[in-house]
Formats: sequence, structure tokens, C-alpha cells
Amino acid sequence: MSGVSALYQLYGKPGSFEKKADGIALGLTIGSWTDLPLLEQEQLKKHKGLVVSIIEFEHILHPQKSDQIKAEIKINYPSANFSADLPAILTTVFGKLSLDGEVKLLDLEFSPELLAKFPGPRFGIDSIRDQLGVYNRPLIMSIFKGVIGRDIHYLAEQLRHQALGGIDLVKDDEILFENPLTPFEKRITTAQEVLRQVYEETGNRTMYAVNLSGRTSELKAKAQKAKELGADAILLNVHAYGLDVLQELSEDNNIQLPIMAHPAYSGAFTSSPFYGVATPLLLGKLTRYAGADFSLFPSPYGSVALEKTTALSLGEELTKASAVKRTFPVPSAGIHPGLVPLLMADYGIDSIINAGGGVHGHPKGAIGGVLAFKQAVAAVLEEVPLAEAAEQHAELKIALELWG
Amino acid sequence: MSGVSALYQLYGKPGSFEKKADGIALGLTIGSWTDLPLLEQEQLKKHKGLVVSIIEFEHILHPQKSDQIKAEIKINYPSANFSADLPAILTTVFGKLSLDGEVKLLDLEFSPELLAKFPGPRFGIDSIRDQLGVYNRPLIMSIFKGVIGRDIHYLAEQLRHQALGGIDLVKDDEILFENPLTPFEKRITTAQEVLRQVYEETGNRTMYAVNLSGRTSELKAKAQKAKELGADAILLNVHAYGLDVLQELSEDNNIQLPIMAHPAYSGAFTSSPFYGVATPLLLGKLTRYAGADFSLFPSPYGSVALEKTTALSLGEELTKASAVKRTFPVPSAGIHPGLVPLLMADYGIDSIINAGGGVHGHPKGAIGGVLAFKQAVAAVLEEVPLAEAAEQHAELKIALELWG
Repeated sequence: MSGVSALYQLYGKPGSFEKKADGIALGLTIGSWTDLPLLEQEQLKKHKGLVVSIIEFEHILHPQKSDQIKAEIKINYPSANFSADLPAILTTVFGKLSLDGEVKLLDLEFSPELLAKFPGPRFGIDSIRDQLGVYNRPLIMSIFKGVIGRDIHYLAEQLRHQALGGIDLVKDDEILFENPLTPFEKRITTAQEVLRQVYEETGNRTMYAVNLSGRTSELKAKAQKAKELGADAILLNVHAYGLDVLQELSEDNNIQLPIMAHPAYSGAFTSSPFYGVATPLLLGKLTRYAGADFSLFPSPYGSVALEKTTALSLGEELTKASAVKRTFPVPSAGIHPGLVPLLMADYGIDSIINAGGGVHGHPKGAIGGVLAFKQAVAAVLEEVPLAEAAEQHAELKIALELWG
Repeated sequence: MSGVSALYQLYGKPGSFEKKADGIALGLTIGSWTDLPLLEQEQLKKHKGLVVSIIEFEHILHPQKSDQIKAEIKINYPSANFSADLPAILTTVFGKLSLDGEVKLLDLEFSPELLAKFPGPRFGIDSIRDQLGVYNRPLIMSIFKGVIGRDIHYLAEQLRHQALGGIDLVKDDEILFENPLTPFEKRITTAQEVLRQVYEETGNRTMYAVNLSGRTSELKAKAQKAKELGADAILLNVHAYGLDVLQELSEDNNIQLPIMAHPAYSGAFTSSPFYGVATPLLLGKLTRYAGADFSLFPSPYGSVALEKTTALSLGEELTKASAVKRTFPVPSAGIHPGLVPLLMADYGIDSIINAGGGVHGHPKGAIGGVLAFKQAVAAVLEEVPLAEAAEQHAELKIALELWG
């Protein structure tokens, strides 16, 4: 089949779904069929939506409406109906339909011809590893914390401590926008200087992802400027802009910087069990297709947490075999060293351990916090229980005592 | 207060909301407060989020969790924390928070200084009326239907019939994208020619809104081209792109075309009672602030329908007193002439009666469909019951018999 096939979750009375599916397949494409003259049917055939499958889950009742069951229906939309961009695809498959009662968009299957029009990550997991020279273990990342209202020296000091611990990546706080105390360009040049010094002192190489923000049409020029200034990577609040904005930044040959997709605002689309878009589709597949090299999302374990099967499917969407490169899964929020075995069991070594409070809140400071994470990762790789490893490593021991 | 104040709906145990509100106000701004030295408190004070109000609705229980009640909390975010653009504002007030359980963003109050940075509609209700020369009644709009896979002659004929009936506006189907049969520029020039002819024949002036689609960075140039070709207005699937994309099109002095905001994909954010963004905020206030001259939304009456109080609040957000111009409310979906009295009671004369099937499905064709709507509007203005008016007007009579 050409084009894109959309999988929807619906609720309704048993036996009602065929009519509903036909209504969607026609209503979102050519409008009507059976009342058309044969000649027009011939002309419109290649534009007609197609019901691919209907699965009724007889035993899964609607939690509030006991006469309704759950169903999943799949509809194919031919590529002749839309231009090969995400706004057109989302409008086709979930434009009007998003407003039409309890229907959730679970997945989109792109035909190979359609997927070939999407860039996927410019770098992806393997190239990021090459840039850092780190293989065979998860990367470790930390986040600036409490930086609003602080000056550039405060940021530089925080960055230095994180880097001295041997962190692989540091990202801006996503709520740090253009501001007079720590302007965008100054953050980049200051970070380069700090990270160069730390590299010379320790041999540790750290990448810094600067928050690319402001008006949509200015993002490309700002990202180019960031590249010129020697930035390592950019952070983007993708869902506050639009997926196509991410894609255009990824495709731009004048930028060529790794892009970290932040999930800010995405909960507005994904959180409901009945409406919106499934998390693995939005933060997984579409974020990957649109070109993010890293995708952040709430891990199943923190205070802000995804349901575990959802969080695992998301990771799979980012890394499973595909025509496009793999995106680093970055399970986040409330991560501390004690969670490293769980995260590595869930996401394997091709993932990123990302912590804010779990680094900065360490009693020995950010340096100690980073060391504790590195010790936890090493222990898991060596198949040593954390409690045992902690006997050798003071930082890990302190972290486990504090956070469990 | 400076900046923006966000109103959230939460559920929780009675008495639990103060702690939650404090956590949001600090967590989404400076991170911590009480453990800061006084000097740092002084330095960070102007960045600190503020809990403005907490209202607990003691008698509104969570529908599934009987120990939880509803609350609304309002938090102020100082303007020093974000740049004056919607991606930064949405990330600040509902970035991480959108992922943090059952919390819905109900409203945003912009300080006058902040609102002054937003354009609002370039034209607005009064200027659109001047362009059409129509006052003292709702405008009437219709939608192309079943145009996917059809050629330009088919569209021209459909447009001609709608215009001959005396329609004020015709909009593209939002799922009609760039395609070889009816390319964007050809649609504009063909429509201009058809509408000029009808004007010469009948004196009826009709505006046509062409669907502006494709990649984000190409939209401005395409809109400028549309303007050069004499387009009347553009239709935009705002929510498949991003609100800031709408704003940039509205602000661009090289475009200067009325913009019609389509609600496609917006249901993914707005439909849940527990998560996401309230409809009056997204399709009302923010769509207006970002510069739409028209905002389409499901009326309370069709098959795809908004709850009535929501639909009314939405209309109010588009038209109430503000520093920015008023946006035309366009209640849509399943509208037929029998609903005109309800729509006019709800939205007054400064609104648009918008129909697809209710125009094209009329037994006397689109001309008859438009006439029936005009007759219904005239009857309401003259305070004549529709059934009575139908005795004088064949088209209205047929419509009422068909749709009630």
C-alpha cells in the first residue's frame, strides 16, 4: 500500500466499527463512493481511503460506558492525497478526526516511498558515539539546574563541575530562553571554553546542548550561528513549535548539529488514554523520522513517569530496524544511580542515563554525582550488584544511601 | 503582575493543593527558594513564580477517585523568565507540567506589556466586513467538498455555484494539499476569474480562502505569492504547524492576507477533560493573539460537536474586549439552515454561518443551499420564525423539510 496507514483506538458498541471505519476511510479522503458514477469511481480510486483491519477487543470494556468495547482500526491513506510533510500527514489522518469523540491515534505506518522523503536523524546513535569516542556503555547526561536569573559565571561553574566528573553530555534547562544574563551565543562560547579546559585537564570530552529558542523563522539562522561558534548540539522544545520545524533544522546542511528533542508540552497530546496521540508514536517514531538524534521522555521510574510498557515501546520506536538512523532514548526525570540497573535492563547500552537532581543533589556535589552514575554503569556492565560495587566506591555508596 | 498567569485544573486530596501549587511555581521558575541565602533570594526574586490563587471545589469529586476533588490554581510567571513568543510561553507554563499527571491548562492571562508583543488579527471582524461590504448580519461561508482527485474545472464549477447563490466566503477543504490536478497557484487564479465573473453577473462579492500548506519555511513565500496572484485569504491548519507559524504569517507585512485558522489536529490537545489545553484558550484566545482573522471550531450542534458552554466561551474569547482586534467565530460541522436561529442566538451577528453538506446537499444544488441559508439569516434578523419564512422561500422550505 502507498501512503500512510493509521492505527486508531476507538470505543463503541460491538459490531459498530465497520461502519465507523468506512466513514473515516471515505470521509477523510474522497467523501463518498457508492453513489458515484462508475467513471468517477475509476477516476477517484487511487485517492480512496481503505479500511485495512478492524480488531474488536470483546473483553475490554469502556471504563465508564459498559455497553462499549475497545477496538483498533487501521486505515490506509494513499500518497496521492497529501504532500510528503508531517503537517499534511497529521491533518489527513487526524485533522477533523481528532475532534470527533473518543479516538486516539496509536500509530502511523509510512510506506517505504513515503519514509524515503523523511530525513531521520542526521547523526544518530553511532555517529554521536564516534564524536564522543564512547562505545559499549550508555552515555551519561546531566542538566543545568536552577539557572534562571543566574549569570554566566554561575553556569560556567555548574558546567565545569559536571564535566570534571566525566559526564558525556550536558543539556540546557529547557525553560532557559534568550535572556540578558546568559545570552545564547555567550552560553555557547563560554561552554566551549570550559569544556576545552576540562578536556585538557582530564581528557574527558563533554558535549553541551544549547537551548535553541525564539521565533520559528529565526531558528535556522540561530542554529547556523551556533554551529559557527562551535556548539556541540542543540536542544529544541519540539512540541511547542511543531514536528516540521524539527525536521527543517535536521535537514539543513548549513546547520549539521545533533538535535536533542525535549518532550515539553507533549503531554498535552499524549496523556489521555482516550484522546490525542500515543506517546511511542509522537516522542518515538515521529520524533525519529523528523530527525532528532536524542529523544527525551519521562522514564517509568521518576515522579513524572510514563507507564512502563509505553516507555518501553517508545524506546523501541527510537531504535528498531528502519530505513532511518537510530535515535538515542533518553529516559529522564527523577533519575538517580540506584535506577541505573533498571534503565539498562529496559533500554540497553544504546541509551542515555540522564539526571538533574541525581547529579546536582549529590552530597559531594555534581562531580560526586557524575562519578556515582559512572560507578553504577560500570557495575551493571560488570554484572556486579550495586550494593557490592558501593563498597568500593564512596560516591555510589553515598548516592544509594540517599536515594536508595 | 508582569508576564503571564496560568490557570490550571487539578485533582487531588482536599488540602493538598497548596503544596502542589508551590511546587509548580518554584519548579517551573527558579527551582528552590527557602534554602537559598538571602542575597540570592534578592537576586532571584524577580524570577520567582507566584501562586496567585487556589480554589478547591469541595463538591466536585474526581469521577474515578472518590478521595480526590477538583481544584483550580493560578500561577504567575514573571516576564523576565521567557522571551515573548508562544513556544517559550507554552514551554514555561505547560512544558514539563503537561507530562505530570492529571493537569489541564485552562487559561492564560497575558499582562498588557506582554500582550503588546502579540499582533492579534491584522484585519479582524470590522475590516473583513469592509472588504465584503456586508454589515449587520452574520457572514455565510461554505466549503469545497469531495475535491480530492478532482480537476480544476470541477473546483471552478463548485465555486461558481456557491458564489452564484450569494455566499460571502468559500474555503478550501483543509485536506486539499499541493497536488497536480489543482495546484495552489492555479486554484487562486481560477477562483479569482470565477468570482470576478460572478460579481459582474450578479454583484455578489465572494472571498475565497486557499489552503496554505507544505513545509513550514516555505509558507511565507507561498503566502506572498498568493497575495501577488490576488488571493483573498488563506486557510491554515494551525495546529499541525504550531501557533508561532500562524503568528509569523500574520505579522509579515509582505503578506497582509486574512488568515482562517482551521482546528484540524487541535482535538489531540483539547478533547480530554483531564489533560491538555482548554478549547477556549487554544482555539479562542491564543488563536486570536497569534493573529487569525477567523477561527473555525465545531459548533455545539453537529455530529462533531463541542459541549455548549465550551463552544460559547470559545466565541467569547474571540470577540470580547481586548487590546487586539476581534476574530470571527466560525462554528462549523453539520450546519444546516434550521440551526441558524441557534447559532445567531449563541454568537450574534458578528459570526459566520459555515456549512459544507448543508450547502452542497441541498436538493436544488449549492445555489439553492446558499439561498436557504440567506433566507434563514434574513428571517432571524426580521424575527420571523423559520417555518413562517419558509412559506415565502422555496429553498428554505426544502432545507427545513430535509434537515429539520
